[in-house]
Amino acid sequence: MTTVELAKAFTALLQQGDHEGAARKYNADDIVSYEAMEGPMAVCKGRDAVKQKGDWWAENHEVHGASVEGPFFNGDQFTVRFKLDVTPKATGERVVMDEVGLYTVKDDKIIEERFFY
Amino acid sequence: MTTVELAKAFTALLQQGDHEGAARKYNADDIVSYEAMEGPMAVCKGRDAVKQKGDWWAENHEVHGASVEGPFFNGDQFTVRFKLDVTPKATGERVVMDEVGLYTVKDDKIIEERFFY
Repeated sequence: MTTVELAKAFTALLQQGDHEGAARKYNADDIVSYEAMEGPMAVCKGRDAVKQKGDWWAENHEVHGASVEGPFFNGDQFTVRFKLDVTPKATGERVVMDEVGLYTVKDDKIIEERFFY
Repeated sequence: MTTVELAKAFTALLQQGDHEGAARKYNADDIVSYEAMEGPMAVCKGRDAVKQKGDWWAENHEVHGASVEGPFFNGDQFTVRFKLDVTPKATGERVVMDEVGLYTVKDDKIIEERFFY
């Protein structure tokens, strides 16, 4: 599978709202995930830690709508653009989160994800 | 200057259409620029080579409109989203180019730029 094929299939799942399925199918066991923040979620190492972060996020945000654009390619990396219309439970204030995800592929799996906002 | 400050000032120049001024002010002398393509423009090393690529692009594309969104941040990197409504002289066909630029900052300068499409 080429990076282009993987990225298109991965992004299609995200566009269907199936973030968990996309991660289950395409994340490497030793994936590393970087958020643009301080604290315990800044770096998550390994499939299980990344899944825990995703579960936490899903439990703590009410999603009203989402758009997922891409993928955009360069070599063994691709990017996806997210706009998420959400209400974080922590604040109760509805906001639009505008993000770029940068993914790195090796051996048909995503070995790194890095989010920009 | 923080990466956030640099990225905002750089992106503001791009939003004004001043790509050349943005590069002149913020590119490092040894910047490396990666395009998502094969051939001589795939990798350009150094301020002068990157300027030549920019000059070539400007001479060979008629720009009808552009939107520049961002910057989006993570650590010493940031991303910018471009939509360019252009007619490449090579084809004469008007198209919308949809791109993400990923920039890496060191010592108040951009040391790497990498474009995804």
